Amino acid sequence: EAREQVQGLHYADAADLIERLDEDRRAVLLSLLKGGFNPEILPELDDDVRETVLDAFGYADYAALVAELDSDDAVYLVDHLDETERAAVLERLPETDRTVIEQGLSYADDSAGRLMQRELVAVPSYWTVGDAIDWLRGASGLPEEFTELFVVDPRHRPLGLVRLSALLRARRQDRLEALMDTGLEPVDVGMDQEEIALLFRRRDLLSAPVTDRAGRLVGRITIDDVVDVIDEEAEDDMLRLAGLSETGTYADAFATARTRILWLTVNLGTAMLVSSVIGLFEATLEKLVALAVLMPMVSSLGGNAGTQTLTAAVRGLATRDLSADNAWRQTGKELMVGLMNGVVLAVLAGAAAWLWYSDLPLAGVVATAMLLNMIVAALVGMGVPLALERFGVDPAVASSVFVTMMTDMLGFLAVLGLATLFLL
Amino acid sequence: EAREQVQGLHYADAADLIERLDEDRRAVLLSLLKGGFNPEILPELDDDVRETVLDAFGYADYAALVAELDSDDAVYLVDHLDETERAAVLERLPETDRTVIEQGLSYADDSAGRLMQRELVAVPSYWTVGDAIDWLRGASGLPEEFTELFVVDPRHRPLGLVRLSALLRARRQDRLEALMDTGLEPVDVGMDQEEIALLFRRRDLLSAPVTDRAGRLVGRITIDDVVDVIDEEAEDDMLRLAGLSETGTYADAFATARTRILWLTVNLGTAMLVSSVIGLFEATLEKLVALAVLMPMVSSLGGNAGTQTLTAAVRGLATRDLSADNAWRQTGKELMVGLMNGVVLAVLAGAAAWLWYSDLPLAGVVATAMLLNMIVAALVGMGVPLALERFGVDPAVASSVFVTMMTDMLGFLAVLGLATLFLL
Ligand SMILES: [Mg+2]
Ligand SMILES: [Mg+2]
Ligand SMILES: [Mg+2]
Ligand SMILES: [Mg+2]
Ligand SMILES: [Mg+2]
Ligand SMILES: [Mg+2]
Ligand SMILES: [Mg+2]
Ligand SMILES: [Mg+2]
Ligand SMILES: [Mg+2]
Ligand SMILES: [Mg+2]
Ligand SMILES: [Mg+2]
Ligand SMILES: [Mg+2]
Ligand SMILES: [Mg+2]
Repeated sequence: EAREQVQGLHYADAADLIERLDEDRRAVLLSLLKGGFNPEILPELDDDVRETVLDAFGYADYAALVAELDSDDAVYLVDHLDETERAAVLERLPETDRTVIEQGLSYADDSAGRLMQRELVAVPSYWTVGDAIDWLRGASGLPEEFTELFVVDPRHRPLGLVRLSALLRARRQDRLEALMDTGLEPVDVGMDQEEIALLFRRRDLLSAPVTDRAGRLVGRITIDDVVDVIDEEAEDDMLRLAGLSETGTYADAFATARTRILWLTVNLGTAMLVSSVIGLFEATLEKLVALAVLMPMVSSLGGNAGTQTLTAAVRGLATRDLSADNAWRQTGKELMVGLMNGVVLAVLAGAAAWLWYSDLPLAGVVATAMLLNMIVAALVGMGVPLALERFGVDPAVASSVFVTMMTDMLGFLAVLGLATLFLL
Repeated sequence: EAREQVQGLHYADAADLIERLDEDRRAVLLSLLKGGFNPEILPELDDDVRETVLDAFGYADYAALVAELDSDDAVYLVDHLDETERAAVLERLPETDRTVIEQGLSYADDSAGRLMQRELVAVPSYWTVGDAIDWLRGASGLPEEFTELFVVDPRHRPLGLVRLSALLRARRQDRLEALMDTGLEPVDVGMDQEEIALLFRRRDLLSAPVTDRAGRLVGRITIDDVVDVIDEEAEDDMLRLAGLSETGTYADAFATARTRILWLTVNLGTAMLVSSVIGLFEATLEKLVALAVLMPMVSSLGGNAGTQTLTAAVRGLATRDLSADNAWRQTGKELMVGLMNGVVLAVLAGAAAWLWYSDLPLAGVVATAMLLNMIVAALVGMGVPLALERFGVDPAVASSVFVTMMTDMLGFLAVLGLATLFLL
């Protein structure tokens, strides 16, 4: 029946299935699964859906599931509960699990301390390959999967790591010290997950040791969790550029509307500012209504060019291809790009205006405004994210609203201002 | 001196250093490194920079570097040469490397065949743990690093995989058959890299076997390369939404301008279409110039709301959270979101128009146009990416230009059309 089918699924597929059911069927399925629920499913669920699982299972059963997971997943789950739920679940956890989880929660959000799991294999440096293999065959409480042994000194500070493929190919009498890779600097518990993701990507790592302030090995970070971070960080940047905090596929319409209205209201504010710029030139517009027809062309192209530059800059900052030491060079390049494309677009837009209204001075105003706006787009598109990064603000947040406000304002101001000066 | 310093660096850091130098210094450094160049640096370099390395080293030395790499990296490098260069480098490769690379190139772009490496460890199912360990200790030509043994039948079809951590914990007399994980379906050589990335992410894989049409094991895909794919695919979506093909941090200004002008020209075309919609209402605008002041507010908010919906949809399609089976439900939800936020923004924008011009009918027109445009933004923001995906086009490409064209057009049409009907 349905129950056995779900239990045969991989946890990620089971999570997907549970997410996609409507509320009534989900409730039925959850009540069927109670007792035989794979705890690995929980971290894969959307927050909104996981909430319904907690409601269906109750605190005690939920705590029992949490206790079965690796410490990183357990910390994640407890972190994603609201305060009353968290207290209730923690209370129902076994003492040791509770201590580990509470310590995990004491580390900063998005830090290595949050991402790491406690479960790892550490061995002393004086052991031989044979010692290690014999111990591994007998030891209990080892993590289910691991790809390396961490070699530690007597004070539990990591000296290096021995990959299992190296261990297997060595002779039993070889010393671990001789096999270990010492090239990897350990990750500090406080390191930000974005830095960690960059480190894994650059070093092609499968896992990394995490050390506390005293330099002692306290956990390891594994690539599968880093993959989730990479995914999440790239998604954040993409969504933030569009003024979204999350896709929220499984959130309801009201919750989704609420998360989006803030950004739209800010945009309404900037749109009003832009409108007030146009309002300054009502007299000009009355005399030359063609301006009202042509000016959105200039503002729209400025907005698009600004978004191109902005997106390249936000991505560059995320990958560290753009940083303080090449910011000036890259800004200079963007300015050149804006100039070149500005000339092309100015000619095209000017020609269009001339064909439309057979008015050469008007065409000249449109062309000049276009060129000016493309230059502004380049400067603002680079300047805003660089400035935000400088002041420690995420450059993907709020960049886009400011850049398009500037290109809109300047687009209209240039068309209407130049027209007022030269055409009236 | 400089040379030894670079040789002491990790290949990713060395690549970064080479990228960041200006052309003269890069040439000096490359000539110093010639002979002792770590081939692992090459795949990490930006295309434009790698070109300069080929120029500095010449075909023969470049081919020698390619031959040292794993087959996946070798195929990647040869693929990224232009035709004359490719022929010249292939000619200078040892026979066996050339055959492997040519076969790799015969697979489709972005397919598993391109991503996989030939180097792997395959063992027969009747072996015991002891057999495997003894063989690993003696065998030559094994990959430098591996995390599993692939168990194959006599026709070289994969039966399952044995993780090294499981191998190490088993007794010597245990049979591999009993240890192996058979849960993983092999990846077909033709599978698209985006599917592969999703598979790795969902299954928390470190590597996956690749099979040809006959079901024989021909290679393995490793997580470090999948991480690059995940990164690249997320970057592609983000950049394409902004009309960029790549960040091109190290491309020169002219090349960058050229890659961006196409998109901007398309945008100029749609902006002209939008302007021609306004042009239909010149008579209305002449009588009521306030419309020219207020209408960008409506079009701008529509564009922002449309971009929010579009971005959420593109991301949803990429993660498979949005697919054919919930497309209608999600579209219904977006419509509800558009309606709710539309009402809020209509009230705010109407109030602003009323305060500004003390003209209640005018305020009513602005409010109604805003509400209509928010509904259109929701429909178009969902409809365009879903339609593109349906027809096999990347939903991130060209979505944004079409969505903002529709919201601009409808924003202006609604304001001016309603004004013509009700205010004149
Ligand atoms: Mg999911
Ligand atoms: Mg536990
Ligand atoms: Mg987070
Ligand atoms: Mg890599
Ligand atoms: Mg984990
Ligand atoms: Mg996990
Ligand atoms: Mg970020
Ligand atoms: Mg780089
Ligand atoms: Mg691709
Ligand atoms: Mg995962
Ligand atoms: Mg590789
Ligand atoms: Mg590599
Ligand atoms: Mg894609």
